[in-house]
Amino acid sequence: MSGWLKIVGLGPGAASMITPEVSAALLEASDVVGYVPYVNRVAPREGLIRHGSDNREEINRAEQALQLAFEGHRVAVVSSGDPGVFAMASAVFEALEAGDSRWRSIDIQVLPGISAMLAASARAGAPLGHDFCCINLSDNLKPWSLIEKRLRLSAEADFAMAFYNPRSKARPVGFERTLKVLREVCEPERLIIFARAVSTPDEAIGVTTLAKATPEMADMRTLVIVGSSQTRRIERMKSPGADEDQAPLVYTPRSVC
Amino acid sequence: MSGWLKIVGLGPGAASMITPEVSAALLEASDVVGYVPYVNRVAPREGLIRHGSDNREEINRAEQALQLAFEGHRVAVVSSGDPGVFAMASAVFEALEAGDSRWRSIDIQVLPGISAMLAASARAGAPLGHDFCCINLSDNLKPWSLIEKRLRLSAEADFAMAFYNPRSKARPVGFERTLKVLREVCEPERLIIFARAVSTPDEAIGVTTLAKATPEMADMRTLVIVGSSQTRRIERMKSPGADEDQAPLVYTPRSVC
Repeated sequence: MSGWLKIVGLGPGAASMITPEVSAALLEASDVVGYVPYVNRVAPREGLIRHGSDNREEINRAEQALQLAFEGHRVAVVSSGDPGVFAMASAVFEALEAGDSRWRSIDIQVLPGISAMLAASARAGAPLGHDFCCINLSDNLKPWSLIEKRLRLSAEADFAMAFYNPRSKARPVGFERTLKVLREVCEPERLIIFARAVSTPDEAIGVTTLAKATPEMADMRTLVIVGSSQTRRIERMKSPGADEDQAPLVYTPRSVC
Repeated sequence: MSGWLKIVGLGPGAASMITPEVSAALLEASDVVGYVPYVNRVAPREGLIRHGSDNREEINRAEQALQLAFEGHRVAVVSSGDPGVFAMASAVFEALEAGDSRWRSIDIQVLPGISAMLAASARAGAPLGHDFCCINLSDNLKPWSLIEKRLRLSAEADFAMAFYNPRSKARPVGFERTLKVLREVCEPERLIIFARAVSTPDEAIGVTTLAKATPEMADMRTLVIVGSSQTRRIERMKSPGADEDQAPLVYTPRSVC
């Protein structure tokens, strides 16, 4: 049997958000390759070898996956969320382009997943319902000056903004800088959503304003969405039989005032 | 039994890309509400009423769904792709905010779907693997001047760009204008992907450059992705046993040169 490589998205956490095509690929795979916590989301079974590796090992992991597929294995490379958004697909293609030219014959597919951005937006309402941008706030692979430039241009374009990797122990100051830049160019009432670990037992959704946001509201499991100038908040009442009011909804209208 | 409203994403077309939580919601619903072709994607069954409506009827449709849910129906509002990206979620929240205040007690959830943008990106490789933006090119609900401003700022930010609604019979000139603006600010070799009807029998993926792109390459079923200045193309060889070389892969590296 000839090998293949499928780069698949596991979605944000809940099994109910994994697409059937991804589940099928995981059942057909002989090898699963990825960052340890994501590999651990794939149940062990006979005939499946799980290759977990450390964070920041993306290129080594990609080369390993390509070589296994080239040798005839059926390899699933797993990412959280969508594999094409700040995840393993680009790393695999970097390794493919730089690596053994025979790898270019491998049957490679990318199977999309529910991205953290879409899951966070759905939980909050529809903050990405109009034009938006998506920025990785980590300066591991690009200079901070470029991030700041993109923040300023995005605010000028009046995009809603989704931020990946806002803050980690190794990068404690980037998100603080981000808030500082946004405060220079956006109004204090601008809505901000902190969506942590969506669809997992640790899920927490917070809605606040730019004036009230603090760096500590984000960590490495948080997806941050900043609304555009048009983004609105709807207060809600309790649903029948409930004790408390439902959480507010945040959405961006389809029209521009 | 008390009613609810779930605003769900059916993904780009294939049943294998519908999440289990969306499938479950469709099985529990008493009413499905949406644009006719999307409602038709939900199989008829006893106990399910399907309410199909015309395009550009979004607010009437949203009000109908809210009223049904308020009266105790279990209502699924269906969108193609993800309901939060240029789809029904924002329309429902516009109707909620402007409508009967008692609607604010309705149990409302948004269930994300695989967006056209993520599906198109996956088919082409990983063009959205670095910072990107997403713009609706329709000027039905915003002035063309704002679209052009966003295009210029996005090019200056060097975002990859995903375009929804590039062209329709009613809007034949917008995408031609878009290409003209991009040619003023991007190099001729800039990669462009035309992803039509992804995951349906009509799927067609085209990869070209800004210099060679023509307005006719897009229609109302096309999602267009324009790479950043960093986006690259990898030629591939045929896979074992195949007659033709595999389609090229297009991806944006994680690092900035």
